Amino acid sequence: MSMASPTSPSVYTWEATNEAVSEKYGVPLDRIIRFDLNTSPEPPGMVARILAANRFENSLSEYPPSDYRRLAEAAASTYGVDRSEILVGAGADEILDMAAKAFLVAGGTAVVAIPTYSMYRVVTEQRGARSVGVLRLGPDRDYALDVPAIRAAAREATLVWICNPNNPTGRLEPEGLVAELLAGLAADAARDGREAPFVVLDEAYAEFAGSSLISLRDRYPRLVVVRTASKAYALAGLRVGFAVARRETLERMESYRPPGSVSTISVTVVAEALADPATLADTVARVHAERTRLGTALASIGWKVDPSVTNFLLVDFDSPERAGRVAESLLGRGLVPRTFPAEHPLSGHLRFTVRATWEDDRLIEAAGEIAREEETA
Amino acid sequence: MSMASPTSPSVYTWEATNEAVSEKYGVPLDRIIRFDLNTSPEPPGMVARILAANRFENSLSEYPPSDYRRLAEAAASTYGVDRSEILVGAGADEILDMAAKAFLVAGGTAVVAIPTYSMYRVVTEQRGARSVGVLRLGPDRDYALDVPAIRAAAREATLVWICNPNNPTGRLEPEGLVAELLAGLAADAARDGREAPFVVLDEAYAEFAGSSLISLRDRYPRLVVVRTASKAYALAGLRVGFAVARRETLERMESYRPPGSVSTISVTVVAEALADPATLADTVARVHAERTRLGTALASIGWKVDPSVTNFLLVDFDSPERAGRVAESLLGRGLVPRTFPAEHPLSGHLRFTVRATWEDDRLIEAAGEIAREEETA
Repeated sequence: MSMASPTSPSVYTWEATNEAVSEKYGVPLDRIIRFDLNTSPEPPGMVARILAANRFENSLSEYPPSDYRRLAEAAASTYGVDRSEILVGAGADEILDMAAKAFLVAGGTAVVAIPTYSMYRVVTEQRGARSVGVLRLGPDRDYALDVPAIRAAAREATLVWICNPNNPTGRLEPEGLVAELLAGLAADAARDGREAPFVVLDEAYAEFAGSSLISLRDRYPRLVVVRTASKAYALAGLRVGFAVARRETLERMESYRPPGSVSTISVTVVAEALADPATLADTVARVHAERTRLGTALASIGWKVDPSVTNFLLVDFDSPERAGRVAESLLGRGLVPRTFPAEHPLSGHLRFTVRATWEDDRLIEAAGEIAREEETA
Repeated sequence: MSMASPTSPSVYTWEATNEAVSEKYGVPLDRIIRFDLNTSPEPPGMVARILAANRFENSLSEYPPSDYRRLAEAAASTYGVDRSEILVGAGADEILDMAAKAFLVAGGTAVVAIPTYSMYRVVTEQRGARSVGVLRLGPDRDYALDVPAIRAAAREATLVWICNPNNPTGRLEPEGLVAELLAGLAADAARDGREAPFVVLDEAYAEFAGSSLISLRDRYPRLVVVRTASKAYALAGLRVGFAVARRETLERMESYRPPGSVSTISVTVVAEALADPATLADTVARVHAERTRLGTALASIGWKVDPSVTNFLLVDFDSPERAGRVAESLLGRGLVPRTFPAEHPLSGHLRFTVRATWEDDRLIEAAGEIAREEETA
């Protein structure tokens, strides 16, 4: 749980740059591999072709088309919704910022199901609002939402942030649980004679899990689903994200949309990527196979690898001290894991992106060496 | 002057898309020329080369470098400041949003010297703060800042928004006037025993005017200068803008910087464009020559063309009715001017971007036809 003053919000903790890691750990720059960012090892091949053709929606000397029309159409078709139900942002992070602006006032309250992506709290506090963290259930309960606790906390809130599959726990909510929460929030609001809170459901990793709850917007008009080109589409560098919601809900966010924050090149490339389901299917199949291979190899070394439906693996090292030691050993080899600070519920864990085979091989090799070092220590 | 409630801020008025103009006025899409956006007719030639090489700071499947290092270094070198005095944003608009977040609280007050770019008011009201407009002096006084009026209004404010050269009036502040304002604001604050307001000085058009007030940050630490790649660098489609300010001031804005809103492609291309002063000089020289040619031609037709140090011309049509008729005649030919709504101090004016010769020739030809129509009406 956290309190915020409007003048000193939570600040996003920057990932160290490759240069910073290289310098701190004395590892050559080209030996550094990022296992901490949940990105893909390379962009789809179509990108080079589009860039070489140098033909975009608009001349690059002009502003991007103010309605991002082709991109919004491609997203609508991909997600099976109407174009009017799509809002485009400079990455999912800008979508989160617009949601905070639209659904929170200074002094207001948002509920966040934790542990989760840290930006929900950051954008909440940047809005001058309070972020109330509600712990998820434990690993034996799939880190699922604690629905009664969220409902209780949400009686004071105008916004609830949920990530599904959740980062960093890597699992989907149990079947029906998000709908149960939405129904509960609506019932509580009706009983209290107030409007239900808006629910932002971040589905950044949905393609890997092969499931989405976008269709729930029909029954729950205050649901906003967030999607991105950064994960399964392997285009994090282009900064494109989407909100998918009913028109009347999107309109509230649209008042806060900047007049054109997404590069024209990104508009063109991501529109083509969305229209290419075969490439997406290849990426997802590759990640599934490689996730199994990497997880099995790490488990055989003795690492406790949590189940995952995403492109990352959460590993339990039993204590913050051991997690810290393993992280330092990996960093010394140029392999960057996601660590969690001391006060984090997962401070005894590390998180690893499923990357290319040759990259994962370096992780597996390092894990083996570290295990042998631990044995002889 | 305007009041805002946090739940219904001013909304940026979108420019109509080319498609919308085409449909409304029955003009083929390829006949439409945008004189309303103050952009350049084409991007620099280097862009095609960089895109074809397909080599960027990072793989496009990864997030942009979290410090935008090479871009920040290029900007620092171009603007003659330290790298720590540069903040990168997704267009100048994101810089304005960060300034509103950093320097305004909900219920606070910002002063805007009007008429000017409408986003200052929009981001102020999106923050839940109040925007107090202070009219600039008249055309006979170069639309200069009304320093005593701004100082009086700013006694309640934590932020003052100024654009110089100002859009849409197209002129520079008289020598020394901005410094005089900054000194006055500091003196008023000292006398009142409070902190001086932050001043955001938007220099989007500075390259065309050949002058900048970045050096004033030494004496006035609460000054934030805004620069952009969208105007003289002819790269509006890439969405890159900068804040230039002293480190302690930028740090306040940096708490609100999103973790990576600028595309990796934009980072690479704009860094190269900033490092190429010859291309910039060519663009500026071309705009100067073409501005003179276009202005002279329109004046010879009888249009009252205001002086300009920018890449646009403001034309006085004496009445909102006549300005509206001329705008409709131009739109019917596919030529899109910037219009001003009825309540705007410049509602009797239209604004025109200086574009390529062949495009400006179409405007000159249309202006001649409209003048003849007006004579015979």
